[in-house]
Amino acid sequence: MNIISYTIWILENHCFIVYSVLIAIFIAFTVFHKNRIENRELIREKKFVPKYYHAEKISDRKNHDDEDPDFLTSAIPENTPYIPYKPIRRSTEEIIKRSREYYELMATRRTVRSFSTEPIPQDVLDNIIKTAGTSPSGAHTEPWTFVAVQDPHMKLAIRHIVEEEEEENYARRMSRQWVTDLKPFATNSTKPYLCDAPALILVFRQTHSFRSDGKKRMHYYSDISVAIAAGILLSAIHYCGLVALTSTPLNCNSRLRDLLSRPHNERLELLLPVGKPHDNTTVPDLRRKPLSEIMLNC
Amino acid sequence: MNIISYTIWILENHCFIVYSVLIAIFIAFTVFHKNRIENRELIREKKFVPKYYHAEKISDRKNHDDEDPDFLTSAIPENTPYIPYKPIRRSTEEIIKRSREYYELMATRRTVRSFSTEPIPQDVLDNIIKTAGTSPSGAHTEPWTFVAVQDPHMKLAIRHIVEEEEEENYARRMSRQWVTDLKPFATNSTKPYLCDAPALILVFRQTHSFRSDGKKRMHYYSDISVAIAAGILLSAIHYCGLVALTSTPLNCNSRLRDLLSRPHNERLELLLPVGKPHDNTTVPDLRRKPLSEIMLNC
Repeated sequence: MNIISYTIWILENHCFIVYSVLIAIFIAFTVFHKNRIENRELIREKKFVPKYYHAEKISDRKNHDDEDPDFLTSAIPENTPYIPYKPIRRSTEEIIKRSREYYELMATRRTVRSFSTEPIPQDVLDNIIKTAGTSPSGAHTEPWTFVAVQDPHMKLAIRHIVEEEEEENYARRMSRQWVTDLKPFATNSTKPYLCDAPALILVFRQTHSFRSDGKKRMHYYSDISVAIAAGILLSAIHYCGLVALTSTPLNCNSRLRDLLSRPHNERLELLLPVGKPHDNTTVPDLRRKPLSEIMLNC
Repeated sequence: MNIISYTIWILENHCFIVYSVLIAIFIAFTVFHKNRIENRELIREKKFVPKYYHAEKISDRKNHDDEDPDFLTSAIPENTPYIPYKPIRRSTEEIIKRSREYYELMATRRTVRSFSTEPIPQDVLDNIIKTAGTSPSGAHTEPWTFVAVQDPHMKLAIRHIVEEEEEENYARRMSRQWVTDLKPFATNSTKPYLCDAPALILVFRQTHSFRSDGKKRMHYYSDISVAIAAGILLSAIHYCGLVALTSTPLNCNSRLRDLLSRPHNERLELLLPVGKPHDNTTVPDLRRKPLSEIMLNC
């Protein structure tokens, strides 16, 4: 196929894409042109800037200060005192030993898809979620809500929603390559573990919150903060002797949020069935990448 | 101001926004219209679907299969055998005890901004990064690269880049509210800890990779997977007796990626100075939210 016939083929078969690209170029040019005229300084800024950086535009700063003296109150008191931090001091030998010991423990963690129905003591649920709550977060906004579901009716209602959406996901929403990549995990739209596991922990991310004076409080880097907290939650689950399934329920956010009466500033990020593994639990015989493939020293 | 004069004011002063909204509506209508004609079933799909779901369009599936029999090879062998999973069985009492013990340990973790220059044994760096590598990831893609920088010249080069970008961030890119929210943390664009800390761990996310046959391998949920791994990395750092600063270097991705010769499918997500705390380390006297504010039971 030569270039001309290929171009004609593109124009004929993908006119929508060509059309969109042209409009995108047009919009990009308009933005560029407008910025150049309005503020020559901004030309230098071509890098990606997340949307909340300019929640207020630079040019609005002065106006805001004039109109609203409370505008620039920090979310945490600005005069928060500093205190000495004296964590446990460990010898070099102890640090080496503990780093190996912790690796050996964590290396035995696996994602599990069949659970014993034995309940989890409430103290344990409380402790693992308190542990997740020790995670760092952007400007200490702690943008997380953990919903622990133990009620069988609620678990069943969650299962119905997840299975309905998953059926759609596998049949229609996920790419065929994705479905193929998941085959070794023998996953499908039937999720008995959502009823079997004694507890489901739903991890919600608060995109923002409200200060006591009613003003919106931005949650910087809430996505990364919540996922870090989920990592610490998983480490707590494994450390105490329980297992979990790390799942990201596709397209279930609004239905599960409504089911659990969570507000609209919250978004479901993860759903973790937690409990003891079923006696006959099996897992795919996967290997993890060796250190040389994930680490570089320089 | 009545509606007519307000409308005129909007059109006069925000013609660009009005224009963009009109184009967006136009594009949305075109997409809707095209989908309706091409595939009536798709009309039902109005929900958010991340971009890689349709990395190949549904209508392309058959063609792909015909042209390329290797297309649907799963990234992990499809016949991966299943093996029994027998983690350590712990008694209920032990689970309760260990969940409390781990919470009490993790509750002493704080983000630290002044480090002792004492080096970290290579074994410890290896172990904490191996621990991070035990994290779960979408379809077991393990989409992470950890670069451990101990060379003083490289640390200095990183510091220069981060400080230069941070100066721009504080002066121009971050909203004034954000700068204010950070005041209690006494952060600014000077980062001596980037040279003091004996190691900097830069966490890169692989947005995709390549299979041995050269085909692109999608990394599903790579963002959440990498942040979960960072959470587990932080838990390993704290468990062994070191401290870290969890930072997300704003706008430094391309310069640090180039400095460290990382490929273009990798993106810098986090930069963690790691080491022992300086003898006189202080931290802001912050409280964490009580359990009742972060956990719901149902």
